[in-house]
Amino acid sequence: MDLEVVTIGTELLLGFTVDSNAAEISQALASIGGQVSRRTTVGDERDAIRAAVADALHRARFVIVTGGLGPTKDDITKHAVANIFQAPLELDRDYLATLERRFEKLGRGPMPETNRSQALVPRGAIVLPNPRGTAPGLWLEGAVGAVVMLPGVPHEMRWLLTHEVVPLCQERIVRGGGTPSMTRSRTLRTTGISESQLAVDVQAVEPGLAPITLAFLPTLGGVDLRLTAWSMPQAQADTALEAAVAALRPVLEMHVYGEGETDLAAVVLQALRRDKLSLAVAESCTGGLLGGRLTAIPGSSDCFAGGVISYANDSKVRDLGVSPALIDEFGAVSEQVAEAMAVGVCRRFETDVGVAVTGIAGPSGGTPEKPVGTVCFGAKVRHKQRAITRWIPGGRQEIRARATQAGLDAVRRMLQHD
Amino acid sequence: MDLEVVTIGTELLLGFTVDSNAAEISQALASIGGQVSRRTTVGDERDAIRAAVADALHRARFVIVTGGLGPTKDDITKHAVANIFQAPLELDRDYLATLERRFEKLGRGPMPETNRSQALVPRGAIVLPNPRGTAPGLWLEGAVGAVVMLPGVPHEMRWLLTHEVVPLCQERIVRGGGTPSMTRSRTLRTTGISESQLAVDVQAVEPGLAPITLAFLPTLGGVDLRLTAWSMPQAQADTALEAAVAALRPVLEMHVYGEGETDLAAVVLQALRRDKLSLAVAESCTGGLLGGRLTAIPGSSDCFAGGVISYANDSKVRDLGVSPALIDEFGAVSEQVAEAMAVGVCRRFETDVGVAVTGIAGPSGGTPEKPVGTVCFGAKVRHKQRAITRWIPGGRQEIRARATQAGLDAVRRMLQHD
Repeated sequence: MDLEVVTIGTELLLGFTVDSNAAEISQALASIGGQVSRRTTVGDERDAIRAAVADALHRARFVIVTGGLGPTKDDITKHAVANIFQAPLELDRDYLATLERRFEKLGRGPMPETNRSQALVPRGAIVLPNPRGTAPGLWLEGAVGAVVMLPGVPHEMRWLLTHEVVPLCQERIVRGGGTPSMTRSRTLRTTGISESQLAVDVQAVEPGLAPITLAFLPTLGGVDLRLTAWSMPQAQADTALEAAVAALRPVLEMHVYGEGETDLAAVVLQALRRDKLSLAVAESCTGGLLGGRLTAIPGSSDCFAGGVISYANDSKVRDLGVSPALIDEFGAVSEQVAEAMAVGVCRRFETDVGVAVTGIAGPSGGTPEKPVGTVCFGAKVRHKQRAITRWIPGGRQEIRARATQAGLDAVRRMLQHD
Repeated sequence: MDLEVVTIGTELLLGFTVDSNAAEISQALASIGGQVSRRTTVGDERDAIRAAVADALHRARFVIVTGGLGPTKDDITKHAVANIFQAPLELDRDYLATLERRFEKLGRGPMPETNRSQALVPRGAIVLPNPRGTAPGLWLEGAVGAVVMLPGVPHEMRWLLTHEVVPLCQERIVRGGGTPSMTRSRTLRTTGISESQLAVDVQAVEPGLAPITLAFLPTLGGVDLRLTAWSMPQAQADTALEAAVAALRPVLEMHVYGEGETDLAAVVLQALRRDKLSLAVAESCTGGLLGGRLTAIPGSSDCFAGGVISYANDSKVRDLGVSPALIDEFGAVSEQVAEAMAVGVCRRFETDVGVAVTGIAGPSGGTPEKPVGTVCFGAKVRHKQRAITRWIPGGRQEIRARATQAGLDAVRRMLQHD
């Protein structure tokens, strides 16, 4: 089932509101095999709405519209859509009574005259009751196709989508003689490898994954690899996805740290818990972000002891026992100092594992030998120690976010693969 | 200047990714008088992209496109758009050299063959260099109008939008001889006051602000108050906004910590710098977020010395000198311990100012007397000390984010108003 979505609202076009409704509609419809082929956003103008909905109907014959159903005079979706169907608006006395009861129940006095317009319904439309608000959903169908109108307020839209639109669409699919097919996805999360290198590594197995498609999604934490099974019965989709994941895992090796929404910090904590190890952090350029990521995970106090934000060099010496001679010789941003910081924080916090980050996040502080983005990591896991340097592109926040992820990943690789 | 936006990505259509780029483009263009009249989203399919961009060009003659410029083979925007302009793709040797240097500098070995495609440029296009990634922006103009292609990765898109597209559009408006009216906004940022209290406080002056409208925007950091002047000449808008800000400031008093995108951490650092004071942090439930916020600001090393993440109670005693008896008597989450932590971190880091956060972020660990969300703050500024308790609603991440903001705000109020 192909459909289009039209979201209406000048505040969406102005960019003051991010269009979360559109994403929710796509997800809800995909779960029952509906596929949104195009999404259009227009402002609160009757001609623009009419044109956008008519175009969408022409292409897809099934259109979900959100927004522009409120009682204020800029809410004109209903008029524009009714006009496409040449359906006059008529007062729905049942719905008017429902509305009046609603106002009575809220005890805010009699219903304002402006709300009467919400009981106007295009002739032939099915009214979808909305217990969360005053604007009903409307399902209008004719020779040109079907348009479902939903209010733009997110929690009202969500209620109608889940309780009315999805069940009605499911019925429609079954009535049409289709076996409900769906679009399902799984995501492999990678880090420490570039998008282009990932593409090269995957090249050999990719043709064999069909009908599963791959999408590469770069984030500040690495590159996610989304596998999608399009429009097929659920069991078939699940089997195909499982086979594709099984084919990709050996190729991607230790670059994969999890699936779906898995957080790298949670993976590290799980590995620590499994091995009954405790962790402390020593942070310079990340300034607390590493601790912040770890303590974001509920129950992290099991294995996370704490750490030192040694932003000033004094603190590296005083709190982490780094020798001033080492800093003089190699510089505060060096593998030697990073390793000494990791060792020092383990000693101070009496932990088995320590990780340290020291780098140049910019915008100033770079030198020709150590440009902005140079970050050194030290990690100690029991008696093993390691230090690496990475050159991270981007601005200060990007460097810090990527350095935090890389610090976590340094520990993960030592815990999982050494 | 009317324009349309086309965002490309099957991820967007599937609803896995919320389209934040679209909102950013609208805002950036509105600030210079550009008005997005329609926004379209299509998947990574050449025909769909071609049709959507051609439709948009036909209506608006100026189109900004995001997404589908990466090196992987689902990135086909360039081909689809070049086809509309009948412009063949040609290898841009300068850009290829730039790309190769970039890979060399990152030290990840030679550039993969797949990245070569990113140096293919439609004949006649202007290449907009992208220091944040490998895909350049492309500005292609012909008899049918102009299309600007930007990568879909948000921080890359944002950089190109701000540094290349907006200045070029501004030039275009001036060249066209227009003095367009524009919609301008200013935002007052408040914290430590609820949205409803803010609404009550503002009630008396609000009618006098017309034609400026107010919007209350609650965030995890507080409530932003957005003032908007709609569609008027720039000078008139600026004057009206200035008058409205002047009317609101006295009403909102010390709850306002800044304007626009001002970060509370930057305000704190500025106050410290002005008074030549140094700062250290002691964090329990925020686990490093306070340090993370402060060190996000470039140049924070001027006054930020570092801190201790004393996640375990051991560390509060060992590293911050909190007396175990105090913890036994009042509990680790108490004003007494928070104050002792602030004093202790000042002593360890030899700073004038210290701030400490200790609380119960949940989901477990709450008690009837100290439910989840109970957070105690200690602050020391020279010889003054203060401790407060806040009960913060929400889940773990919300509690931690709000506690971080409240910790910063505790210091700000002592620095600015005591």
